[in-house]
Amino acid sequence: MRYYRVPNETIRRLPAYLRGLLSLSEQGLESVSSQNLADYLGVNPWQIRKDFSYFGAYGTRGVGYDIKKLSRQIGKILKLDVVHKAALVGVGNLGRAVLAYPGFKIYGFDVAAAFDIDPKKVGRKVRNTTIEHVSSLRLLKKRKIDIGIIAVPAEAAQQAADALVKAGVKGILNFSPRHIAVPKKVKVISIDIAIDLARLPYYMPAS
Amino acid sequence: MRYYRVPNETIRRLPAYLRGLLSLSEQGLESVSSQNLADYLGVNPWQIRKDFSYFGAYGTRGVGYDIKKLSRQIGKILKLDVVHKAALVGVGNLGRAVLAYPGFKIYGFDVAAAFDIDPKKVGRKVRNTTIEHVSSLRLLKKRKIDIGIIAVPAEAAQQAADALVKAGVKGILNFSPRHIAVPKKVKVISIDIAIDLARLPYYMPAS
Repeated sequence: MRYYRVPNETIRRLPAYLRGLLSLSEQGLESVSSQNLADYLGVNPWQIRKDFSYFGAYGTRGVGYDIKKLSRQIGKILKLDVVHKAALVGVGNLGRAVLAYPGFKIYGFDVAAAFDIDPKKVGRKVRNTTIEHVSSLRLLKKRKIDIGIIAVPAEAAQQAADALVKAGVKGILNFSPRHIAVPKKVKVISIDIAIDLARLPYYMPAS
Repeated sequence: MRYYRVPNETIRRLPAYLRGLLSLSEQGLESVSSQNLADYLGVNPWQIRKDFSYFGAYGTRGVGYDIKKLSRQIGKILKLDVVHKAALVGVGNLGRAVLAYPGFKIYGFDVAAAFDIDPKKVGRKVRNTTIEHVSSLRLLKKRKIDIGIIAVPAEAAQQAADALVKAGVKGILNFSPRHIAVPKKVKVISIDIAIDLARLPYYMPAS
């Protein structure tokens, strides 16, 4: 159930706000103004106020937003208030980075399984996760894993996606630099770790 | 020199359009309609048309956009029409993934140097790049490297940023899950490889 009509562009920004809020909370803060949160994240304060207004979060004048309450609210909107189990496919360098990255846990994700096609990797442990052979992928449903993370080379991406869809995942995070085709009921979010670099020169001062 | 006033939100989307265009070009296409490009990228066609209109790119009715011409135009706006040399700091799993990732080259980036603090890694080769000790960072200017990529653990991020700034880089791509402080003249873009996953459950069908 969604109680508010939150625009997609706002949904896209909410994870960054949430990360900022969690980080400020770790630093011991209990409340924050839109101006301070904006400075911290490097965004516009009016944008933050507008985005928060969509779900009825208005700060108290002179105090700001209650960090804990606002984090919970954003987590609920993003449906991060329940733990989501994810399966990683591809335990190369990027896959290992995914298993080691603290950020997934922060957002309530448990990368609960890791798969690879290389028999030399199968059975090995990476950060408490034992690597399984991709042929075991079909058992994901029983293990309550509903998210797949693809970190295989481009040429194996579609195959990995097909296996994950067959195993019943409802969402895929695609790190491979290849467009993958899935049925409409499965949501795919693709990440290109190089794409943000492409914005950098535009903002750099000329030599 | 900027010939057009392109909004920041459009600049943010241009790298994804460019990747799509390059990928379609690789597949042998010479022109593409906004509708087909939108379908390929999973975005709105009206958004594409609006974004392209800011820099005077209008497709031909019934034919669409000339892919090569449009790619060149976008590359020029993003200042990707010259090769940018980048230095990687931190050759852990994520750093290795950066060195192996084909995407950086596509956008005209040459990850020309890699640094680590671990003496056991220094001197080793990863994908044709010999790992150097972080103490050599100060020589970046001479090597015409003006971009830094930070892939160190959170607690070492600020130190890496300070060293890169001192070495004269004008832009930093920060993969560490920590906010880094730099002088105003240096542009920082931070990437959280987990943050896109945080948008996924919102779009997933309920069980």
